[in-house]
Amino acid sequence: MKKFIKCNDLIDFELCVNQIIDSKKNPTKEVYNKEGKVLGLIFFNPSLRTRLSVQKAAINLGMRIICMNIKDEGWQLEFDDNVIMNGDKAEHVREAAKVISTYCDIIGIRSFANLSNKKSDLEDNVINSFVKHSTVPIINLESAISHPLQSLADAITIKEMSKVKKPKIVLSWAPHPKPLPHAVANSFIEMCTLCNFDLTIANPLGYDLDKKITKGYEIIHQQNDAFKNADFIYAKNWSSFDDYGKVNLCDNSWTIDENKMSLTNEAYFMHCLPVRRNMIVTDSVLESNCNITIEQASNRVHGTQFILNELLKNEN
Amino acid sequence: MKKFIKCNDLIDFELCVNQIIDSKKNPTKEVYNKEGKVLGLIFFNPSLRTRLSVQKAAINLGMRIICMNIKDEGWQLEFDDNVIMNGDKAEHVREAAKVISTYCDIIGIRSFANLSNKKSDLEDNVINSFVKHSTVPIINLESAISHPLQSLADAITIKEMSKVKKPKIVLSWAPHPKPLPHAVANSFIEMCTLCNFDLTIANPLGYDLDKKITKGYEIIHQQNDAFKNADFIYAKNWSSFDDYGKVNLCDNSWTIDENKMSLTNEAYFMHCLPVRRNMIVTDSVLESNCNITIEQASNRVHGTQFILNELLKNEN
Amino acid sequence: MKKFIKCNDLIDFELCVNQIIDSKKNPTKEVYNKEGKVLGLIFFNPSLRTRLSVQKAAINLGMRIICMNIKDEGWQLEFDDNVIMNGDKAEHVREAAKVISTYCDIIGIRSFANLSNKKSDLEDNVINSFVKHSTVPIINLESAISHPLQSLADAITIKEMSKVKKPKIVLSWAPHPKPLPHAVANSFIEMCTLCNFDLTIANPLGYDLDKKITKGYEIIHQQNDAFKNADFIYAKNWSSFDDYGKVNLCDNSWTIDENKMSLTNEAYFMHCLPVRRNMIVTDSVLESNCNITIEQASNRVHGTQFILNELLKNEN
Repeated sequence: MKKFIKCNDLIDFELCVNQIIDSKKNPTKEVYNKEGKVLGLIFFNPSLRTRLSVQKAAINLGMRIICMNIKDEGWQLEFDDNVIMNGDKAEHVREAAKVISTYCDIIGIRSFANLSNKKSDLEDNVINSFVKHSTVPIINLESAISHPLQSLADAITIKEMSKVKKPKIVLSWAPHPKPLPHAVANSFIEMCTLCNFDLTIANPLGYDLDKKITKGYEIIHQQNDAFKNADFIYAKNWSSFDDYGKVNLCDNSWTIDENKMSLTNEAYFMHCLPVRRNMIVTDSVLESNCNITIEQASNRVHGTQFILNELLKNEN
Repeated sequence: MKKFIKCNDLIDFELCVNQIIDSKKNPTKEVYNKEGKVLGLIFFNPSLRTRLSVQKAAINLGMRIICMNIKDEGWQLEFDDNVIMNGDKAEHVREAAKVISTYCDIIGIRSFANLSNKKSDLEDNVINSFVKHSTVPIINLESAISHPLQSLADAITIKEMSKVKKPKIVLSWAPHPKPLPHAVANSFIEMCTLCNFDLTIANPLGYDLDKKITKGYEIIHQQNDAFKNADFIYAKNWSSFDDYGKVNLCDNSWTIDENKMSLTNEAYFMHCLPVRRNMIVTDSVLESNCNITIEQASNRVHGTQFILNELLKNEN
Repeated sequence: MKKFIKCNDLIDFELCVNQIIDSKKNPTKEVYNKEGKVLGLIFFNPSLRTRLSVQKAAINLGMRIICMNIKDEGWQLEFDDNVIMNGDKAEHVREAAKVISTYCDIIGIRSFANLSNKKSDLEDNVINSFVKHSTVPIINLESAISHPLQSLADAITIKEMSKVKKPKIVLSWAPHPKPLPHAVANSFIEMCTLCNFDLTIANPLGYDLDKKITKGYEIIHQQNDAFKNADFIYAKNWSSFDDYGKVNLCDNSWTIDENKMSLTNEAYFMHCLPVRRNMIVTDSVLESNCNITIEQASNRVHGTQFILNELLKNEN
């Protein structure tokens, strides 16, 4: 594997999920000895779970880590070609990616959607520029349109926690005060496809996601209808895709509470975190036993450890 | 030991100080092999000595470190319960503490007093929220009202340097241009109590510390009187406790100089650093042999190493 | 060796360059086992290559690293003596350097020229204050007037890549939108002197560098004349030295393009990076085979590894 940018960069995603679940039961540390290997982490945006879980995964493998907030600690990067660089951007990604490649065995990149340039976001310009110009594997720490490490952890969590063979999973939009990217929702849907999960999407009118990604799935605009018989509720906010990056309503009737959860088949509540309490979901749901968000966060380590190991195999 | 938030979290503080002094003479590295253990460091505020000495201590133990400036690199945290999170705070400590606990074996927290909300500061709200919601031990890297790692290093230094059996120690207020928290002074007094030291407190009128902490100690409002026969002068600024967080005078007559030091029994000069030269203390005192501030800073490593080791014992 | 502030801190610079080139061919990891040694990195300014390559070099040696952006993560430092510290600067370098020395085995300092106080810059005040007050070796990660780790990598690159015994090297000024320090150019010239390289300097009128450094070298004010028969073109911008820190022209006629490169003896193109594309040099030159800037960046690791090892020898 040369990169992990989207879920389907894993040749058999579901098989990998099953392998990770097995290896959690039977940890074999011997195969994970990657001493001397260096993971470079380049952050264009804030991060808590990803920043920490990726480091923990690398530590588990015996790797060393070099971590960098590139805009503040390094230079602003230019991603466009054929420009006269006489502004604020001091370095071109063509140089930066090659240079970082000489120091690191794997490069992790976190760069959110800017939500202003739809074309550039859809091309996933920042991370793909690193893929193009680096000479070592790139791992996606959340890009403009994908967050596959989150979805991998979500897949592990669903498979581990499900009480039924083919659970009904509902991806539900929920309100948030600020415009958010589509990366988590996109990758969650892609993951459900790769795992052949039974997915329903619920969101208000005007908040349908990219049709290329939701193709084949039912989109329901009445949250209560969607929740019926659900085994997993996966909450997430995203801004409008059609009216790109805009928040045209902040509809608190979509906040997930105990009443709505009672419509489900005693569903587990999932969220990628950070979660806005009493906006996305009420305190009472989060303080109940149905909340498995911490399990999701914990599985970030196991998923990332697997991916780092796969990416390093390439090299040896 | 489940946490180190205040000096008295150590069951027998003075015995521990003596053990640390012994282990400095006879370092036995074997018992300190904590490879694979991860120390998470979460900074809400700047830090030089603490940031570096805690990392050095963890390195000595063979631990790995994940360091994070949470406000800039992660998310602003909400600490209040039952709030609708529709403002700038993206994550609740209830989630953050649990999540960080899944990645780290010990979590260090630095969060200064804000000096505007006395009740919240006195409850040591930030660090105690982490204690409450985390599932791994918490170590205090300076909280609103306590800085026990500093006081532990101070105790080591006093015991190592004292020329007499029961030295007279003076904690003296000294001027500073900005309002400062009470944490270092509080913990110093608590440490003196636990070590049964002979302590005198000197500060201007209006600058008495929390009476719950100073109870039983003489507070002198004439600096010169306090300095007589002192063996250790511990200088520190703090803002008013009664007129909470205010600086009602910046009385340069309290600056510690050679004349004042000459009133003492050839006392050593101590300060937690950073120190404002020619505000807190003159250059000439700092450049003289009585200055043992670097010894204090150096002992931070030995104290922290002991505490990290104690906190990890719990786990095994 | 007690410090590496300028190229001539190495007793025999050229011999060291040859040794590094040899050790790249025959890596002997055994002699480089510096486990438990701590490298402290103190950044006053942004850095990408230096930040990453120094960490990679330390990792190769088995060292541990503590990295700090001192202004944001620690305290603003005072470097002047005999001042009343009642402003924004909370700590004096006299304390900071001694304290950091107690935690680290080597301290790296990056502090650019401020380009406003010529005297202070020429004295290389920040890094020399650390040299004066620290008790462990100091390594220069680029100071006001020197960047010897860059020049060491440049020397390795030139020696490795040169097709002739005594190549003609041209250090050419090139345009840039902002005022830049002289450190890279200064150290490059000093390195050429120590390696006995055939150096020509090309810059516009008004941009002559410090005469103490350029003494003995031809300075040509017509770029085309300088480029004739060159084997290496080393591009770099710097602000005026005489009209200190000013940019009195932004002469795009000095941008290096394929036409100018065609005047040379099929010269290699070198730059310390980050490079402003189509200001310093055109895309077409950078995308051609003559570009060896990535080799320079890669050699940063080998040079730094050698220097760290030399600095640690002192200690043992």
